[in-house]
Amino acid sequence: MLTNDQLAKWDRENFFHPSTNLGQFARGEGPQRIVTGGSGVHITDRDGTQLLDGFAGLYCVNVGYGRTEISEAIAKQAHELAYYHAYAGHGSEASITLSKMVMDRAPKNMARVYFGLGGSDANETNIKLIWYYNNILGRPEKKKIISRWRGYHGSGLMTGSLTGLELFHKKFDLPLAQVIHTEAPYYFRRPDLTMSEAQFTAHCVAELEALIEREGPDTIAAFIGEPVLGTGGIVPPPEGYWPAIQEVLDKHDILLVVDEVVTGFGRLGSMFGSDHYGVKPDLITSAKGLTSAYAPLSASIVGQRMWDVLCRGTDEYGVLGHGWTYSAHPIGAAAGIANLELIDKLGLVENAAKTGAYLVSTMREALGDHPNVGEVRGEGMLCAVELVAERDGRRFFDASEGKGAKVVAAMLERGVIARAMPQGDILGFAPPLCLTTEEADKIVSVTRDAVTAILG
Amino acid sequence: MLTNDQLAKWDRENFFHPSTNLGQFARGEGPQRIVTGGSGVHITDRDGTQLLDGFAGLYCVNVGYGRTEISEAIAKQAHELAYYHAYAGHGSEASITLSKMVMDRAPKNMARVYFGLGGSDANETNIKLIWYYNNILGRPEKKKIISRWRGYHGSGLMTGSLTGLELFHKKFDLPLAQVIHTEAPYYFRRPDLTMSEAQFTAHCVAELEALIEREGPDTIAAFIGEPVLGTGGIVPPPEGYWPAIQEVLDKHDILLVVDEVVTGFGRLGSMFGSDHYGVKPDLITSAKGLTSAYAPLSASIVGQRMWDVLCRGTDEYGVLGHGWTYSAHPIGAAAGIANLELIDKLGLVENAAKTGAYLVSTMREALGDHPNVGEVRGEGMLCAVELVAERDGRRFFDASEGKGAKVVAAMLERGVIARAMPQGDILGFAPPLCLTTEEADKIVSVTRDAVTAILG
Ligand SMILES: Cc1ncc(COP(=O)(O)O)c(C=O)c1O
Ligand SMILES: Cc1ncc(COP(=O)(O)O)c(C=O)c1O
Repeated sequence: MLTNDQLAKWDRENFFHPSTNLGQFARGEGPQRIVTGGSGVHITDRDGTQLLDGFAGLYCVNVGYGRTEISEAIAKQAHELAYYHAYAGHGSEASITLSKMVMDRAPKNMARVYFGLGGSDANETNIKLIWYYNNILGRPEKKKIISRWRGYHGSGLMTGSLTGLELFHKKFDLPLAQVIHTEAPYYFRRPDLTMSEAQFTAHCVAELEALIEREGPDTIAAFIGEPVLGTGGIVPPPEGYWPAIQEVLDKHDILLVVDEVVTGFGRLGSMFGSDHYGVKPDLITSAKGLTSAYAPLSASIVGQRMWDVLCRGTDEYGVLGHGWTYSAHPIGAAAGIANLELIDKLGLVENAAKTGAYLVSTMREALGDHPNVGEVRGEGMLCAVELVAERDGRRFFDASEGKGAKVVAAMLERGVIARAMPQGDILGFAPPLCLTTEEADKIVSVTRDAVTAILG
Repeated sequence: MLTNDQLAKWDRENFFHPSTNLGQFARGEGPQRIVTGGSGVHITDRDGTQLLDGFAGLYCVNVGYGRTEISEAIAKQAHELAYYHAYAGHGSEASITLSKMVMDRAPKNMARVYFGLGGSDANETNIKLIWYYNNILGRPEKKKIISRWRGYHGSGLMTGSLTGLELFHKKFDLPLAQVIHTEAPYYFRRPDLTMSEAQFTAHCVAELEALIEREGPDTIAAFIGEPVLGTGGIVPPPEGYWPAIQEVLDKHDILLVVDEVVTGFGRLGSMFGSDHYGVKPDLITSAKGLTSAYAPLSASIVGQRMWDVLCRGTDEYGVLGHGWTYSAHPIGAAAGIANLELIDKLGLVENAAKTGAYLVSTMREALGDHPNVGEVRGEGMLCAVELVAERDGRRFFDASEGKGAKVVAAMLERGVIARAMPQGDILGFAPPLCLTTEEADKIVSVTRDAVTAILG
């Protein structure tokens, strides 16, 4: 280990961090933390601070830190064959085995899996395949993608366009043409407080129908959504939402992309969110939970009706011109195999359901009556606490007050990592799926203490 | 190891391979190879076939296969800390150390490094930064990107648009608006055979100037190019090309992105192609050579004049809304450190220059006079043999004859991997930088035998 100051200096002088205030960081004004290790739900930094990671990295370290089963699988693969490409029918034992394991777990109507690196590039792949599909079908006009406000689908140019959050659009000239947004299925923020959940669902569906009519159904290729809104606020859908949306899409022959980067492989207490909510996707995006972040790997899982058309396309036009050098990287594949085995062995999908429900209900008991808590919500191992200035009439804090960020900072001082979601004053929780009830209790008590410290 | 047939079946039934003819592969008609190991410049498949990899995977395994220094670094990192994110000023010892090592090697005017996963996402990052830069400078109209025909910059929607090859555009509705293409600096394919190299350079420059004038300099943000055209045909630039291009860009205040995904970290016999050709980039894209593909990692290296504006932007508008979950992944960073150390220790940059020159000159001696060889060219450890139907008048084969692919297939039967470049009948060579003269001789003799077998 280098001396603290030298490493910190190198960091400020050389390293361009993602989602960071660059000027502040370079001047040594912004927060800086060098993480050195982890075990279970805890991480340790080089100053010896131990933190309970209530967000599992970026809701990705699903099996928890320090799993030797996965690190050994990575080490073994690195020694045997760190890399060969997967172009033109090449593969490795690891990537092929993982493709079988993914398809064994995927919803019924899925046909094949394409491996990329992260959630953003998996959504890039999806959009390319959707456009290709409609070109092969002779429908060159059917190309627009509908996404939801507050959706998160990545940070690239097209994927950041799919994302419906201001931070990812402003100053980047996004969204690009071809992407249009519809209402977020966010009941707590419904336009009219008197609406019931079912009425709000009907409202979301009507908004979608109206958008499709306005644009013309023949111009709309696909709809993309997360089973539970993630970075947009951790919001489970209102009652009956997904079946009603699917019906509209089916009527207009619009493909459904279910972005399961957060929910795939267990986070909702089901293997996939698609099965959890009973929807039939044409494409599933996954990443994080596929390897629990031990190595980069994403998966675009392609449904049968798309696959048939893709095969027709390559029969007619030859090789599909799409690929990343690191598609199906053997190290990622080896990590994925060990990770999926561990999820089964430790029963983490079941624990996500059970301990996740415990976390949400305990959080609700502890904070549900606080005058600045508008809602405590969650599904599986996902939980959010939405702060308000006043419960009556649902008055929000002014964004400039940064109340959510302040509570999260107060939690950090008390040893627990939560995430201040980027739009609104929302405390986000997405711990590793191996969370115990004692660890859930700790998260809840620290949240309560921090909320009290900041808001009284 | 599973029995051959079961693994092969899983592969056909589950795995969506990149750049593959999907229908053929699924029906068991396309080529299939399961790679199990490698050492030096050789790979082995599960049938026990040993092949000399004359293309280093996809010109990325620069240090060669089976380097225990790198696999041990990966194993060590996997055990210590497989993952933590790099958002909001977080880092790991590995990612910070690598940021310092990259900046120590980068051209002089560079300021910071952003780590992504592959070459495509690094170029996504670059375009986002370029648009942000001009928004902060109050030039919202200055956004178009000029790329070259036959450039390769990735396979995403925007990066596939930058790419100037038909295979990556057709049926995908690319290029997107905002990307425009100019003449490829491809002397062998000059429009008029009587042009000298210097005249052809002047022609490329005039084409670029005319394009800029036509579009309006105030609408052009950046120019992107590979130091040596890679996937477009492995073509070193004509005499005087880069300084002349840089002059035009400077005149119109257009940023220069040098895509060094292939050339970065030694392939040309210099650490960077930018230094090799004496250009001053505003952004450098790198990936492959950064880790020799042992783990996914890319780098966008940002020049000082852009960095200053990015800091100004975040001072005014807060956090930069850009990041991948796996940005600066610790496993990739650990691989990068070990890889760069190994490149120095083994003197691979020098060997790329020396043995690369030997490969090109030996290839030229062996094939330069063959009636179907139009040109043998190369730079550093890159070499290409361009096939023609007739040398006089430079008559090309009809694409449907697939002559290049046939020669490459004949080479494979003789134990050497070369790449049939996707546009034209061009045999591409980009072996690991550790190639010996004996191995170069083997590549050349197999190439000569295969050319003779197919073309007489
Ligand atoms: C639902 C969803 N989709 C896509 C992404 C993008 O994934 P990545 O950051 O790996 O590019 C994320 C990341 O948080 C996500 O939550
Ligand atoms: C010059 C260049 N840029 C970008 C890329 C894209 O890199 P990746 O395949 O890792 O996305 C490549 C890949 O071959 C390349 O050669």
